Amino acid sequence: MEATATSNPNTSNCPRIVVGLSRGQEKPNVSSVTAEARELGYDFVILPITFPSYRRFLFEQLIGSVDVNEKKIMEEWRKGHPFCREDLVVKNADVSDFMVGQVSNWINLDSPDHSIRINSEVIMRQQLSWLGHIGISAALLPFPSDSLMNYARCVNSIFGTVPYVNMWIKIPLILEDEILGLKETVTWERWNKFRTLCENHVKLSIALEVTQNLPEDNILDRWFAEPLKAVILPTTIFLSNAKGFPVLSKRHQTFVRKLIKYKPNFIIDCVADGPNHASGGLAAYQEYIHYLNRTMPELTQVEQFALGYHDFLQSPLQPLMDNLESSTYEVFEKDSTKYALYEKAIHHALLDHTNGSEEMILEAAEKAQKLVRVYAIEKNPSAFVTYVRYKDHLFVLITQELRFNIILNIRKFSLQNKKAEVWGDKVTIVFSDMRFWKAPEKADILVSELLGSFGDNELSPECLDGAQKFLKSGGISIPTSYTAFISPISSSKLYNEVAAYKDLAHFETPYVVMFQSASELAKPCQVWRFEHPNSNISVDEDGNPINNFHNTRYSKVTFNIRESGILHGIAGYFESILYKDIILSIHPDTHSVDMFSWFPIFFPLRVSFFFAK
Amino acid sequence: MEATATSNPNTSNCPRIVVGLSRGQEKPNVSSVTAEARELGYDFVILPITFPSYRRFLFEQLIGSVDVNEKKIMEEWRKGHPFCREDLVVKNADVSDFMVGQVSNWINLDSPDHSIRINSEVIMRQQLSWLGHIGISAALLPFPSDSLMNYARCVNSIFGTVPYVNMWIKIPLILEDEILGLKETVTWERWNKFRTLCENHVKLSIALEVTQNLPEDNILDRWFAEPLKAVILPTTIFLSNAKGFPVLSKRHQTFVRKLIKYKPNFIIDCVADGPNHASGGLAAYQEYIHYLNRTMPELTQVEQFALGYHDFLQSPLQPLMDNLESSTYEVFEKDSTKYALYEKAIHHALLDHTNGSEEMILEAAEKAQKLVRVYAIEKNPSAFVTYVRYKDHLFVLITQELRFNIILNIRKFSLQNKKAEVWGDKVTIVFSDMRFWKAPEKADILVSELLGSFGDNELSPECLDGAQKFLKSGGISIPTSYTAFISPISSSKLYNEVAAYKDLAHFETPYVVMFQSASELAKPCQVWRFEHPNSNISVDEDGNPINNFHNTRYSKVTFNIRESGILHGIAGYFESILYKDIILSIHPDTHSVDMFSWFPIFFPLRVSFFFAK
Repeated sequence: MEATATSNPNTSNCPRIVVGLSRGQEKPNVSSVTAEARELGYDFVILPITFPSYRRFLFEQLIGSVDVNEKKIMEEWRKGHPFCREDLVVKNADVSDFMVGQVSNWINLDSPDHSIRINSEVIMRQQLSWLGHIGISAALLPFPSDSLMNYARCVNSIFGTVPYVNMWIKIPLILEDEILGLKETVTWERWNKFRTLCENHVKLSIALEVTQNLPEDNILDRWFAEPLKAVILPTTIFLSNAKGFPVLSKRHQTFVRKLIKYKPNFIIDCVADGPNHASGGLAAYQEYIHYLNRTMPELTQVEQFALGYHDFLQSPLQPLMDNLESSTYEVFEKDSTKYALYEKAIHHALLDHTNGSEEMILEAAEKAQKLVRVYAIEKNPSAFVTYVRYKDHLFVLITQELRFNIILNIRKFSLQNKKAEVWGDKVTIVFSDMRFWKAPEKADILVSELLGSFGDNELSPECLDGAQKFLKSGGISIPTSYTAFISPISSSKLYNEVAAYKDLAHFETPYVVMFQSASELAKPCQVWRFEHPNSNISVDEDGNPINNFHNTRYSKVTFNIRESGILHGIAGYFESILYKDIILSIHPDTHSVDMFSWFPIFFPLRVSFFFAK
Repeated sequence: MEATATSNPNTSNCPRIVVGLSRGQEKPNVSSVTAEARELGYDFVILPITFPSYRRFLFEQLIGSVDVNEKKIMEEWRKGHPFCREDLVVKNADVSDFMVGQVSNWINLDSPDHSIRINSEVIMRQQLSWLGHIGISAALLPFPSDSLMNYARCVNSIFGTVPYVNMWIKIPLILEDEILGLKETVTWERWNKFRTLCENHVKLSIALEVTQNLPEDNILDRWFAEPLKAVILPTTIFLSNAKGFPVLSKRHQTFVRKLIKYKPNFIIDCVADGPNHASGGLAAYQEYIHYLNRTMPELTQVEQFALGYHDFLQSPLQPLMDNLESSTYEVFEKDSTKYALYEKAIHHALLDHTNGSEEMILEAAEKAQKLVRVYAIEKNPSAFVTYVRYKDHLFVLITQELRFNIILNIRKFSLQNKKAEVWGDKVTIVFSDMRFWKAPEKADILVSELLGSFGDNELSPECLDGAQKFLKSGGISIPTSYTAFISPISSSKLYNEVAAYKDLAHFETPYVVMFQSASELAKPCQVWRFEHPNSNISVDEDGNPINNFHNTRYSKVTFNIRESGILHGIAGYFESILYKDIILSIHPDTHSVDMFSWFPIFFPLRVSFFFAK
């Protein structure tokens, strides 16, 4: 079901979620347990790998003993002897696709006793290679104790021997004794130590146990930056509703709904073998989680669009849409927010530019047709052939009088895309790089959309520096300016994906990514700004900049970390003033409503850093 | 002279040191300055790359100005225009092998002013590429200011464009204002930040400026872990002796003598163009440094032996001597300390074993010849053919009575190596792996020397576990035990050498190395011990161990860092009890006097860590 979970086509609105059952039986009967679980509507079961009898191989009785013969038996066993069938809970691969194997929690890899430590390692290796052998894709491992060095070392070395088994480390949200005053971050810090010792192995992930008491929200949020493959819900944390059915408290509901977005494998953990609630039996828990999934709040336009792009690293050098299939292409064109903001900006710019009033504008609507010249300059040959869209384009509006309807048209053009049919002769389309176009006349307004997720990273400043030579003095550039922001990001998932390439190049590439498994260690800070037109540029006789040094930027910012965490990279955003108070933004705090043309940019760090609060 | 310094055959006792002269002239006449320096007995000179006139290209007057034409001139220059000959101090490669170029200290790469920052970068790039062009191997760069981000970034990117120029960053031991109370570690921490931003580039090193006041010794020691390529000695820190000649204070002398061991390029820095002292002129400073070099304390045997092996990483898998040329081979055999300790141990073991007294021993000396059987077991075919030495050997002494002279002989054998001539029939040499030798009779004493720098790392435990089956019960193993110690080590030099391989394998290899450019962040701690004979092993019918788990070790130690520093790896040592109170040790605090058979072991860390005190 590991496969199921990950192969979930996460482009559907309400993706199916996977719920498993753990009955905590020490001596389960595999066939009946699995059959029953299927009947109860569960997608998989958690089963121990060996029966309790297997504990004899810890040879605990030998601590301090000098019994030569018993020692000899132990040493012979350590050499590696095969499982006895009677020790194995699951004896063949029949139910492999329906189960997760549970490593015995009585092993102690960090015992002060040398012998217990060695035997625990041998046992864990045996159990996990058995899982690998019968083709089980995931193992549930015990919660690490405070001294976890050797445990982590063993897990890390076992990855090499059972490459296909995913290790889910059980991590409770809170340790009981924490409630009695210990700080709530203990379990995260223990996990952090463990995964660091395992060098963030991609097969290592968390089985997060939701506890009765929940920590503060900022503590909870931290887990979303971690590799959550499973979420354990003990039946004891469920309340009973009026009818005696199991339900979760409001806070638990909210948290679980958040978790659902990450599509973990949910595990209902029956502390007692049977149900804890009067009504609904064991099925009720699974039904309740599916109910929470079905009743998730409606997705916003942006969320809709972002489906399938969460944590998906793309190079920002090609425009975002190039990575989308044609169907999404259409969706992308429907970013009405962006076009509306541009229209509004152009509208206001024209009003100011012509000191006109709405009335005059409406009167002038007719005349406008003849009195305007619009040039659309396209540098992308294929787009030139097909149609004109704002993206990667420059509109030059040359106005003698106010022309309200023109603006409406411009928007229409951009949506209908058929010069021949719609634009007629009102627009001259020029195939040229705007930096080198010889304009027949100077423009009053320059409209461009060359913005990247980090503002300038698609070379908008360089293009506009070259284009502004055919803007009249006092002319207006839309956008007027754009400002870049950065914030420190924690995301082991994204870090691992970059690291997986095993080369420097991928660490020194910025990516466009819709963050999901990430948390911001601090609020974004402004780093720099670009303004247009830029009157401070020295130009050559052709009016082009002599060099590009004026577009270099240098900035230093200080962040105050909210919670201890690991810095994996830097997130980048932009905020653009199109004209006066008309702002287009992907800054989290000022993000333009329903706009989805840009995802944030992500600069990974080659070496991640731990920051204590 | 960079070359000179590094190609110094560092196997001679008093290696020649290199002393350069910096006269701090703004407008030096190259030919006369160099000629004079040669006459004065200096090996190189420090010369500015450009004349002060070149400062005009900072265009400082343009800060806040709107002069379009001046701006245009600046932009044209920034595009990259060639040097005017009159700006260049050194116009050709004539004196390249006799000079180090000094980057102008008036540039400011971290100026809050954008324009100054850009121009400073262009200027530094120009100056350094000029050095590269005329084949100068080293550049002296200004001491970084507190905000050094951009400075470091530029230097790091310039390494790519002028690959052959070594960058010496000027770092004073103490900042003047530190004396007025600031903590003395400021300059080290600034250096540390700078080199970290340059990712420890191998071409980046320190020109350490020795100041009038010296910090505490532990602060001074830290610099020996850093890449010291140059040491600047301002004439102002010299005192005058009775005759008016420049001399250094006792503490300065001690420090400079320590520095000499690292063979840096010394630079006499005339703050005033001329000498600061009544007698000796400018030559006196250079002569004084050479005097300090000539009058270095005599090298100990170990130092003698270690010459040429400082910071030289060797794989511990081959015995150390394999890496030495045959001449050193002879030296190596002269490790009388090791043989003496073994002799003493065997002596005492025999006394105890036979409850004999000196007198009885001497009486027995004669008889001994007939009454002893000695087996020498050799597993190395070539050594078997040539001669027998303790290393990699096992001596089995089978004694019915006490035999003092035998021990003397054994020592003699090991030094004379001629079985036929010396040993006669008293010793049987057996070609066998001791683990599998079928002994004709059981031994009273096992003597072996299979120790690695970390104790067990040459598999002494595994060999002796196999051999102890032919030791009588109550028999003695020499050595009786060996204990491993580790300590945290800071050494950017060793770290860089490992990193230079650019692969994981070299980071996961331990090395045998004679530390020089390294400092211990904390005292060594014990990690584990092996004892022989080991009565706790379960053996099979042949008397061999069933498995090797009993030789696995696990340990956790906590260190208290003495001074803030960077952890680059772990040093390993061993201390062996040969017999009772006879100890053979390479632990720094208990190192056996004059013994040089083992260098410490070094486990590099892939990621270095900064530890604040």
